[in-house]
Amino acid sequence: MGTRATVKALTPLQLAQIGVQGLLANTYHLYLRPGAEEVRAMGGLHTMMNWHRPIMTDSGGFQAFSLGAAKEHGVGKLGGVFPHKDAEPPGGHRSGESLVKVDNDGVTFRSYIDGSTHRFTPESSIAIQRTLGADLILAFDECTSPLAGYDYTAESLERTHQWALRCLESPRDPHQSLYGILQGGAYPDLRRQAVDFMTKLPWDAMAIGGSLGETKEDFHQVLDWTVPHLPPHLPRHLLGIGQMVDIFEGVERGIDTFDCVIPTRFARTANVMVGPEFSHRTRRGTLNLKQARYRNDHSPIDPRCPCYTCTNFHRAYLHFLFASKEILAGTLCSIHNLTALLSLTREIRSALEQGRFQALKESYLSGVD
Amino acid sequence: MGTRATVKALTPLQLAQIGVQGLLANTYHLYLRPGAEEVRAMGGLHTMMNWHRPIMTDSGGFQAFSLGAAKEHGVGKLGGVFPHKDAEPPGGHRSGESLVKVDNDGVTFRSYIDGSTHRFTPESSIAIQRTLGADLILAFDECTSPLAGYDYTAESLERTHQWALRCLESPRDPHQSLYGILQGGAYPDLRRQAVDFMTKLPWDAMAIGGSLGETKEDFHQVLDWTVPHLPPHLPRHLLGIGQMVDIFEGVERGIDTFDCVIPTRFARTANVMVGPEFSHRTRRGTLNLKQARYRNDHSPIDPRCPCYTCTNFHRAYLHFLFASKEILAGTLCSIHNLTALLSLTREIRSALEQGRFQALKESYLSGVD
Repeated sequence: MGTRATVKALTPLQLAQIGVQGLLANTYHLYLRPGAEEVRAMGGLHTMMNWHRPIMTDSGGFQAFSLGAAKEHGVGKLGGVFPHKDAEPPGGHRSGESLVKVDNDGVTFRSYIDGSTHRFTPESSIAIQRTLGADLILAFDECTSPLAGYDYTAESLERTHQWALRCLESPRDPHQSLYGILQGGAYPDLRRQAVDFMTKLPWDAMAIGGSLGETKEDFHQVLDWTVPHLPPHLPRHLLGIGQMVDIFEGVERGIDTFDCVIPTRFARTANVMVGPEFSHRTRRGTLNLKQARYRNDHSPIDPRCPCYTCTNFHRAYLHFLFASKEILAGTLCSIHNLTALLSLTREIRSALEQGRFQALKESYLSGVD
Repeated sequence: MGTRATVKALTPLQLAQIGVQGLLANTYHLYLRPGAEEVRAMGGLHTMMNWHRPIMTDSGGFQAFSLGAAKEHGVGKLGGVFPHKDAEPPGGHRSGESLVKVDNDGVTFRSYIDGSTHRFTPESSIAIQRTLGADLILAFDECTSPLAGYDYTAESLERTHQWALRCLESPRDPHQSLYGILQGGAYPDLRRQAVDFMTKLPWDAMAIGGSLGETKEDFHQVLDWTVPHLPPHLPRHLLGIGQMVDIFEGVERGIDTFDCVIPTRFARTANVMVGPEFSHRTRRGTLNLKQARYRNDHSPIDPRCPCYTCTNFHRAYLHFLFASKEILAGTLCSIHNLTALLSLTREIRSALEQGRFQALKESYLSGVD
């Protein structure tokens, strides 16, 4: 969350009151608007958005690849289709001209705002992230499609590794920690190759990125092939993943941190996160407050939740705000979802310490996809 | 502001922190959704929306008349066209069937939500407002068009006066103060007739409503014909008016309180209220933060403003948030506009005490429509 240097519908003061410790902003979006130099002129990301806790920026690569491809194919991260050679029909792309061109030096892409042409290289990505001023920055990599063939994924991985070396040689500020990113698609030997190559380099932390396969099982396998072989002293981040079920599966396999827009996106569509003891919990692990059953429901979302929303408002009022398309609905439910997610991570941590992680996981994931 | 029991894009906590003392919610909207009984079941308006300072509700009449008419004519309050006989072509309405039918007992109208038919009478309006539980409630009246002829306005005024008697006889709760509403269009003898009739009745406070003429001059005349003849010990409210210039003109003529969505509506369209000392102030008394000149403007909206927005964010960041269509833009600018409006009313009060009201008014209104 924090895509365009704002967590949608919340002020940074509200975020701090909720207890949020850090957020991720997208280099791609900020590079296009307002522009990296403009962010620096505003005092850098922290000062500009008035957020004085940690900020992570991604490399810009994921959006440069996926927003170009998404224009053509309309697909996303898990099970999605990114630009790649193997799956394309001979002679070019399915519809119109590609918005993305990858070569061994970098990627050329078109702005989704005005169609202008831009280019990211490992050096420019790190330079932009340095200009933005985030604390945690990511190496520039190519994120391949789950549908990419072996040959293309292997070629792309080699490119990502050459880019990794260039990222490490690019100047960054002393307070900036650089994450290396492990790619390799859903191919065990390529994932292993990524581990072998990347763990020998002097990263401050490791991130697992790219295609996580087409199914949840693929995703778990990718983690199993990767995480056990990472240096134990380095933090491990899982990029762009954050559904409740994925957090359990990720933590179980050794992931420390996640980033995802799901808590606030769910909130704006009336999906509020609740525990397994709630009736009518959807397969997302949420209540859907748009359902008619909440029209006269005079209880808070979760009576045990300490958040501003749960201590002051009824489900019936939230249902009414969604029916009236009022902005406040998204704000109040975002406050709840972020609070619920932070509570869940604390609960998971304490369950791990007390040896009851499996029981907690099974109860939370009952009925959830 | 507070139309649908929420001040758009702000939590009640933020409103209280700004120093907002009271708000107005619309009976018409709340009657249609969630429904008056549903609001009562949620503990009444104060508990439902978690706002424990004064709430005013209007009678529902204004929207019942104007939303019906607005569907046909697309017009508003000042210089607008409401349903009336004189201005209609013989034989009926210009387009389709009218959504509003007025008779001497009340008004029948169609829901803008689902087209269902509903009816307000003086008794039902007060009963609904009692059910909602506001502190300050308004008599049920007919709001005529600035274009209504003399005959229709006179007939309507007589109806409003009969309705006033019925409102006073309708049961309300002891904590509810009832405002009588003065109508009479832009006709001096009808306005005088309204004053004569209404000031003899036992209202808790007086409100000036209805057509205020077609021009600002008409509006000032209506106030001049009315306010000097009101009982000096009763609060005077001016309904649905709240541009900065109108606040000066109203206060000068003896108005105590106003209600209007303008501060928050302006905020959501990037118009932020500033004093006369600011360059590039628009004819609305605002800066328009969407203008390119603010793209690299690293100053707060108003360096002397104590609000959360001005103490923490640059104009350039707000410009960027508007360009990105981010919800936070409206929230932050609403915080500023409400703070600026409250500061202005304090400044006006102190200027009145110190005999420099005219100088303050002239400086604030320079260049403003």
